[in-house]
Amino acid sequence: MEVKNTKAYEVVIDSIKDMVFKRELKKGDKLPTERELAENLKVSRTSVREAIRALEIIGLVESKQGAGNYIKDDFATSLFEPLSVMFMLQESSPKDIFQLREVLELECCRLAAKNIKDYEMDRLLAIISEMKETDSEERSSILDKEFHNLITTTSRNKLIINVLNVVSKLIEISIKEYRSQIIDLFKNDRKLVEIHESIYLALRSRDEEKIIKAMEKHYTLIKQSVKM
Amino acid sequence: MEVKNTKAYEVVIDSIKDMVFKRELKKGDKLPTERELAENLKVSRTSVREAIRALEIIGLVESKQGAGNYIKDDFATSLFEPLSVMFMLQESSPKDIFQLREVLELECCRLAAKNIKDYEMDRLLAIISEMKETDSEERSSILDKEFHNLITTTSRNKLIINVLNVVSKLIEISIKEYRSQIIDLFKNDRKLVEIHESIYLALRSRDEEKIIKAMEKHYTLIKQSVKM
Repeated sequence: MEVKNTKAYEVVIDSIKDMVFKRELKKGDKLPTERELAENLKVSRTSVREAIRALEIIGLVESKQGAGNYIKDDFATSLFEPLSVMFMLQESSPKDIFQLREVLELECCRLAAKNIKDYEMDRLLAIISEMKETDSEERSSILDKEFHNLITTTSRNKLIINVLNVVSKLIEISIKEYRSQIIDLFKNDRKLVEIHESIYLALRSRDEEKIIKAMEKHYTLIKQSVKM
Repeated sequence: MEVKNTKAYEVVIDSIKDMVFKRELKKGDKLPTERELAENLKVSRTSVREAIRALEIIGLVESKQGAGNYIKDDFATSLFEPLSVMFMLQESSPKDIFQLREVLELECCRLAAKNIKDYEMDRLLAIISEMKETDSEERSSILDKEFHNLITTTSRNKLIINVLNVVSKLIEISIKEYRSQIIDLFKNDRKLVEIHESIYLALRSRDEEKIIKAMEKHYTLIKQSVKM
């Protein structure tokens, strides 16, 4: 490998990336030792350690004391946080965020209609029942999130789930901001409960038209309330 | 800030993240000096440097020799590559990738219909004209990508553009793989040109129904060809 102007740690990262794309490295696999990497790539041990530390920070690699470095087996939501920081820096408008949320959640709903299991339908119903009963605005907001997260999960599309996770930080901020405005508008959260109930019913009927209509109502309400 | 079990470099990264979310740090801004960060956060200079190096590697921070560390002003596509590696490791199926591409590109088309400028419409037309004329499979594949990238850009939604960039690596691999199969099926690429032309015409008419239909044809062709 030619080094040219590339920084030494970049050579290490590129080589690990290559191994992933060639499927030579998979989840849970052990990386070559730091010494091997340094020798093969003709860079210093320090550069190898810098690169590994960075991959550790972005959540790709896990260092097990005395046992070496491993590709992480399980990616928690938090791994995708660096990206949400970038999105934040891009100064995406709330309108941008809502457009993305809308289109991905609608897709999740459509996929969920095909893939949702009975016990998951029951869980949605339980969430709605609790929404109706709770007086706590805080609890209500948690239930709202749970409702949408469950639909996301039942899409069974890991990639879409991940992308929604990447923007979850931003969405969370938005929901909190806008949800309180919606509540203000209606003085109570009956309307929101109603809308979630119609999403549930549409899902249960597994009727795509109904799902699209219910989700549209959901977003129309939000948009009217926040005048987007 | 309490340190507990958190690693020292994590404290530094969390603090920089916080500043971004509080909008105290924006694109192009200078970070506090390494000495300031070390003192304020009660961590070693080494930990600060580790954290900064990691942020540099993921493309968030730029070190200017002698001038300190800056939040990057411009995020190139490459910055989002760490995420494409993660997606790769998640072993997302081609079906997952296509579902995401389909839903985001359709949304881009709908937004493009509202936002596309005349000179961009002309550029689309020029791409199609060249598609018709070229005999080179390689050139044809570049034009295909340009066509879809231009539509993405004209959506004017930075967030959606970024997400499509994140998966671009994966999409690129898929397009190459599947495009050749489609060509195989039709023996020449007339059918693909035709479909791109109908997307162009639908966009020009700014008729949402037509856009959805044209895009559906596009994906139906792909799905039939690859039997997804």
